[in-house]
Amino acid sequence: MFSQRISRLKPSPIRDILHVVKRPEVISFAGGLPSEDRFPAMPTIAPLETSVMQYGPSEGEPQLRKYITRDLSERGLSVSPEQILILSGSQQGIDLTAKLFVDEGTLVGVESPTYLAALQVFSLFGARFDPFTASAQNPHAILSDSNDRPALVYANPTFQNPTGYCYSLSERQRLAEACDTAATVLFEDDPYRDIMFEPCERRPVVSFLKSSSWIYQSSYSKTLAPGLRLGFLACSKDLYPSLVSLKQAADLHSNGLSQYLVLKMLQAQDAKDRHTELCAYYRTKRDYFCEQLTRHFTDIATWSTPKGGLFFWLTLKSRAVVDTRELLAHAIERNVTFMPGEPFFAERSSACGMLRLNFSHTPEPLVERGLKTLAALIREHTPSR
Amino acid sequence: MFSQRISRLKPSPIRDILHVVKRPEVISFAGGLPSEDRFPAMPTIAPLETSVMQYGPSEGEPQLRKYITRDLSERGLSVSPEQILILSGSQQGIDLTAKLFVDEGTLVGVESPTYLAALQVFSLFGARFDPFTASAQNPHAILSDSNDRPALVYANPTFQNPTGYCYSLSERQRLAEACDTAATVLFEDDPYRDIMFEPCERRPVVSFLKSSSWIYQSSYSKTLAPGLRLGFLACSKDLYPSLVSLKQAADLHSNGLSQYLVLKMLQAQDAKDRHTELCAYYRTKRDYFCEQLTRHFTDIATWSTPKGGLFFWLTLKSRAVVDTRELLAHAIERNVTFMPGEPFFAERSSACGMLRLNFSHTPEPLVERGLKTLAALIREHTPSR
Repeated sequence: MFSQRISRLKPSPIRDILHVVKRPEVISFAGGLPSEDRFPAMPTIAPLETSVMQYGPSEGEPQLRKYITRDLSERGLSVSPEQILILSGSQQGIDLTAKLFVDEGTLVGVESPTYLAALQVFSLFGARFDPFTASAQNPHAILSDSNDRPALVYANPTFQNPTGYCYSLSERQRLAEACDTAATVLFEDDPYRDIMFEPCERRPVVSFLKSSSWIYQSSYSKTLAPGLRLGFLACSKDLYPSLVSLKQAADLHSNGLSQYLVLKMLQAQDAKDRHTELCAYYRTKRDYFCEQLTRHFTDIATWSTPKGGLFFWLTLKSRAVVDTRELLAHAIERNVTFMPGEPFFAERSSACGMLRLNFSHTPEPLVERGLKTLAALIREHTPSR
Repeated sequence: MFSQRISRLKPSPIRDILHVVKRPEVISFAGGLPSEDRFPAMPTIAPLETSVMQYGPSEGEPQLRKYITRDLSERGLSVSPEQILILSGSQQGIDLTAKLFVDEGTLVGVESPTYLAALQVFSLFGARFDPFTASAQNPHAILSDSNDRPALVYANPTFQNPTGYCYSLSERQRLAEACDTAATVLFEDDPYRDIMFEPCERRPVVSFLKSSSWIYQSSYSKTLAPGLRLGFLACSKDLYPSLVSLKQAADLHSNGLSQYLVLKMLQAQDAKDRHTELCAYYRTKRDYFCEQLTRHFTDIATWSTPKGGLFFWLTLKSRAVVDTRELLAHAIERNVTFMPGEPFFAERSSACGMLRLNFSHTPEPLVERGLKTLAALIREHTPSR
């Protein structure tokens, strides 16, 4: 009865967890929720220009696209407004890109680990995966296999979800060179770029490409508010007409009210100050979270302190034997949640012994209690050596 | 380089026309734009509840889903909130439904003519079409061919786009019976139901089903405002989990701010009065448009006065020889646009001699001038008999 792709449709583990999280007694390190107390004040919208409420262009509102063009140029990516497509959140960019490139059996290069909802969408359309690790390996070596090279490479080079890793300049150049050499399309997902705590190289990898087609996308969910459901993509000119048609087929165009509000918030006089304060706020939360990790997890896990983004990525010292999905089931019983590591791996490793912890949302007193509970649980479920 | 489906991706003719329409000198009967001067006042949204701005459930906000459940029940469709999925506009429901059912070669039953953007999406996923005409034919006869029966039937029974036709009670019952007999899923698209000028049977066809699975969807674009990009679907329980997962993969969830505003507008004290006034306003516009059609088109076209919706559907008396796509090219030169009939037919008839005229958006003085220009043009391009 259903299409063949439905056999490949897996509900997101995040969704199932979010249902649990709603219980007020639960301390959640699972989602990637920004902190509500730093949501921006809503700009005045009355009297509303009627054009905001009418059907609009599939490409998005011209003023917002111009703003994004200028902003990307300052980041080292030179594009015209005719290469900008407004999205209903950057998850939509993954759907459109999958539609554009992925048939059943199409090979997609992905970081290992990578954003699980990207794996979910590419899988739905029938992708096979070719995982690579930017920090540990030269991606060139993977992509250059001419017998089975990926049609598309998906990467999240800046404050990656889930690891928090940020590519160095040479890693950025190497990935771009690998894509050029293999004539492979690069799809760079960059939603965390503006949540930065220490100076990092953040120039878009696509800006280093010499010949390959590319898509670059980002989101306003982390710096403004997720409920506005607004993101954008920029792409090489050859991809734009098809992406606009796919966008039109998906939802005609993105919310006019959100486009209006986001542009107003981006252009507000205090926008820069607000952003500086936001990063300082999250840096403080990160530092507190790290202190508590050091206190409770030093003997059972390792991690790198992320220079940006919203997550810590823990590798348990007993990693080979711990399936963190099973661990989660026990943690939920004690009213703590986190994101198991296994769904972030395309290669479907069983028992990866890694897990993702969000530090942006939980208030400080609960962070301490939650991490203490979680550490105790891990000790209980770790075979003594 | 692209996926196979991209060879089936056609830009919407509406999109191309909308670009022309933006020139202020153009009188457009092409789009389906509601009238801006009847957009609702925006409810007060400050101080905003933060939950509106946070990530939300893929299913949609619980309060809005409860409201829709009660509303559907009054319309004769009994469902629970656990069968309601909020959409980012009803175009998204077509995308999700196509993903759920359509593989390359899947047969989809569609009215002839039907909504062109539905044809576009089903085609993208590889559908073949089985066109039927509810008013002229018993759909049972089509769907009961057991060798090649459609997996899905897409219908717009109430004030159809493009014809404005509204199914009678017996036509509704017959279509439901046909779907039950053939065990075919019925996908009922109902965006115009609340723009009604004369009493009509509007009970959802899916409510007459006895055994078939179904999806029913509607939109707030016509009665509130399109820029809010909000619609919803209800479905039989067997389809709901997959549709929610597909929604999550498409854009995580719909805009929280729009869901908040729409619920407030639906629950407003003056909501009923506002709706009554809206229908009266559009009825007046329809009547004026009909007068002008009678004045300028009586000798060259036939039409039925629509009892609801936003469109007149004209059949030219010289229909067999007029390709309305060519006619449009000439009309644009004279600063008038309309929607050609050909793209509404799955069977791709060349030169259908039918066209769609929107009456909701153009101000009265321009209606007269535009229709007069168009009629003159048609006379010039009609071979004398």
